[in-house]
Amino acid sequence: MAISIPIALIYSENTIFHLIISSLISLITGLTAWYFSRKAKKEIGKKESYLIVSLGWIIFSIFGAIPFYISGAIPSITNAFFETISGFTTTGASILNDIEAMPYSLLFWRSMIQWLGGMGIIVLSVAILPILGIGGMQLLVAEVPGLKPDKLHPRIKETAKRLWIIYVFFTVVEAILLKFGGMSLFDAINHSLTTMATGGYSTKQAGIGHWDSPFIQYVITVFMIIAGTNFTLSYFALYFKFKKVFKNEEFRYYIGFILGFTIIITFSLFAFESLSFEQSFRYSIFQVVSMITTTGFATVDYLQWTPFLYFLLFVLMFFGGSSGSTGGGMKIVRILLVLKNSYLELKRLIHPNAIIPVRFNHQVVPQKIISNVLAFIVFYIVIFVIGTIVMSALGLDFDSSMGATAAALGNIGPGIGSVGPAENFYHIPAFGKWFLSFLMLLGRLELFTILIILSPSFWKK
Amino acid sequence: MAISIPIALIYSENTIFHLIISSLISLITGLTAWYFSRKAKKEIGKKESYLIVSLGWIIFSIFGAIPFYISGAIPSITNAFFETISGFTTTGASILNDIEAMPYSLLFWRSMIQWLGGMGIIVLSVAILPILGIGGMQLLVAEVPGLKPDKLHPRIKETAKRLWIIYVFFTVVEAILLKFGGMSLFDAINHSLTTMATGGYSTKQAGIGHWDSPFIQYVITVFMIIAGTNFTLSYFALYFKFKKVFKNEEFRYYIGFILGFTIIITFSLFAFESLSFEQSFRYSIFQVVSMITTTGFATVDYLQWTPFLYFLLFVLMFFGGSSGSTGGGMKIVRILLVLKNSYLELKRLIHPNAIIPVRFNHQVVPQKIISNVLAFIVFYIVIFVIGTIVMSALGLDFDSSMGATAAALGNIGPGIGSVGPAENFYHIPAFGKWFLSFLMLLGRLELFTILIILSPSFWKK
Repeated sequence: MAISIPIALIYSENTIFHLIISSLISLITGLTAWYFSRKAKKEIGKKESYLIVSLGWIIFSIFGAIPFYISGAIPSITNAFFETISGFTTTGASILNDIEAMPYSLLFWRSMIQWLGGMGIIVLSVAILPILGIGGMQLLVAEVPGLKPDKLHPRIKETAKRLWIIYVFFTVVEAILLKFGGMSLFDAINHSLTTMATGGYSTKQAGIGHWDSPFIQYVITVFMIIAGTNFTLSYFALYFKFKKVFKNEEFRYYIGFILGFTIIITFSLFAFESLSFEQSFRYSIFQVVSMITTTGFATVDYLQWTPFLYFLLFVLMFFGGSSGSTGGGMKIVRILLVLKNSYLELKRLIHPNAIIPVRFNHQVVPQKIISNVLAFIVFYIVIFVIGTIVMSALGLDFDSSMGATAAALGNIGPGIGSVGPAENFYHIPAFGKWFLSFLMLLGRLELFTILIILSPSFWKK
Repeated sequence: MAISIPIALIYSENTIFHLIISSLISLITGLTAWYFSRKAKKEIGKKESYLIVSLGWIIFSIFGAIPFYISGAIPSITNAFFETISGFTTTGASILNDIEAMPYSLLFWRSMIQWLGGMGIIVLSVAILPILGIGGMQLLVAEVPGLKPDKLHPRIKETAKRLWIIYVFFTVVEAILLKFGGMSLFDAINHSLTTMATGGYSTKQAGIGHWDSPFIQYVITVFMIIAGTNFTLSYFALYFKFKKVFKNEEFRYYIGFILGFTIIITFSLFAFESLSFEQSFRYSIFQVVSMITTTGFATVDYLQWTPFLYFLLFVLMFFGGSSGSTGGGMKIVRILLVLKNSYLELKRLIHPNAIIPVRFNHQVVPQKIISNVLAFIVFYIVIFVIGTIVMSALGLDFDSSMGATAAALGNIGPGIGSVGPAENFYHIPAFGKWFLSFLMLLGRLELFTILIILSPSFWKK
């Protein structure tokens, strides 16, 4: 939070006062909590891990919202919390009706929230969730170089360090490129922060559409693709181990899905809208990548397209990025495992006595992981359906209910209907905002982390 | 087909000529096929079973369409086939713009198609599919009294006989009650035929809404509930073994879902529409039962309700009736198994070393069946998504694409959007009609039967 104070100084905004207060409140609360718990036992069990991860995200969101609220920039507690948790979960669903009216320092804090959220997610998904056995994340453990999964503490520390260096590196490179492409330094840094987090907060009401620069749009497209890639693969790529990257099945399908959807939408746009081929391709790949990586940037109001095309984008909202990336959604690896397993079930019916396991990256996937992944997908769909019912009960129409739910649960940001890319979440009733905040958290923490805490057997001794 | 000739005689319709021709064509083709295959080996293997079941439904639909086509009542081959396969699959999606203009004999044939389709499904789902190991149907095998699953031929024969007697019995009782309630004998018989098949073809353009009789609506509601119940349970009920019926988990949840959704919709209708409480309840339970059993009758245009309420009905389209009933959809038992398995996964994560199996009717369900059911659900959802993409590519809007796909795949009939209860499928492009016909067949034959035939490994020696 304090990191935004220099921005307030540069632009001589009176938010400097609010940022100092907020930082002090956070600092004092933190120090107090530390003081009273400093003699508690240091061993952290599995159950505590679930609680720490879940509560951590909530506590961050509460404290992160203070500057917005006390500065009067977002005068409603509901809205301030919504905007903040939407940031920390890297969702990017906004309630701001006039982004350009916000002080620079708070816009920077808003982008920073997403960037920090993305940082948290990288460690969480690569280092912590696999150890907790959440939904196929174990598949990643073997991938992290030189790290043994049995030692929790040094492993997380070392993994975090390596991955964060990459994260910072990409953020800096993108910011330089965006500045070079014509953005102001402030905008370049902000968009770089929110791209790498697959967050999607912008400093402009019109989003990336504000800059009619193909260069900027292509740069962001490329960095969204990077942000939606497993960061351990980026690690390999930076060490020129490209073979390892392209041998990774999830990555190959991730790129395959992007290309497939882009080709279909490019040709449809070129055929039915009055756009040049380059424009069709650029709009198409930008929107496809923005959706599959769950970033949520938009260069065009895709709801103006024919229902066929925006339904394709809607489907992509469920795919999500690769595991170990900052992307949300179901994740490519899970979709792959589930599709493979279902296809193999046909073979199993034809040859009932043969044992036909699912393979991923040429290795047999244990039945336990398949079962876990299938449970994840079922929960995801059930929560999506219940979420849509709740949102429609609040008076939203059919499309908007589905769109808002899918966008929150998948940590995307804009959805379809009245929460489309040209609109925002301001008009959602207060209860709906709290409910969507909960969905963002659920989706961000791979469902199980929260669902386990809510299950009665968690609380039994 | 020949059974409709007397109807043509009674109403002295010139379709008598077309029905005789159609019957002769079918008879001669059948006899020819029999003559040339009479010396073929009598042993039927697993692969042949899949082919016979799938091709059977297609061949029936081709021959069943002949009377509609040659009489000129449905002058397009696409439409005639669509109407017929929609009947045999007990879907009930219609292309008729003026039902009352159809000759009585053809309307009767149309209802008869559904009734015969329902008859086929009962045997298929209770006796044949479990042996083929399709999607959890094995769970039923133990339920059929006094029948061993190892002897295919006598088992099917005996099961079929017992269940068809019940099917005929309920059809007769319902027809009598509907006649008593004020329908003409013709209408009573037709609606009874299509209720028991959970088909939903009506002899009136306005459907059941044509009769503003609470009695008729309640009678149909009750018989839809029966038609959506496992017919082996009805068998027990008719022998006064009610304990066995109420101990059945699928039945309890089936009734529970009906009551739950009815209560929510009743109170919402009563609160927000100007209806009496009895009307709210009647409209609500009729529509809920019609959707969950996949019958597709409507007494009201539910699309005029608030999105919240018709979204609830839309969700019910996926539930489907009980296994071993004439209902379509995913089937209650599969939903239960999948939800139970996902919930238990939370327990499994908390206690990673414990073996926590899914139980159904107090018995442990083998992992093989769970895996099969999960694959079924995944296929169902993937096919739904692909179907929606295809329909939207044909130019249908968002709601209609989803509605038409869900209604065809779930064998319901009317959906949402432009294929709602006040509309029909006439306006769908020809390709869309053939595609939806395929979806009806897929859904009706529990996906796997068709998917297996389409998989390359089926055709390998």
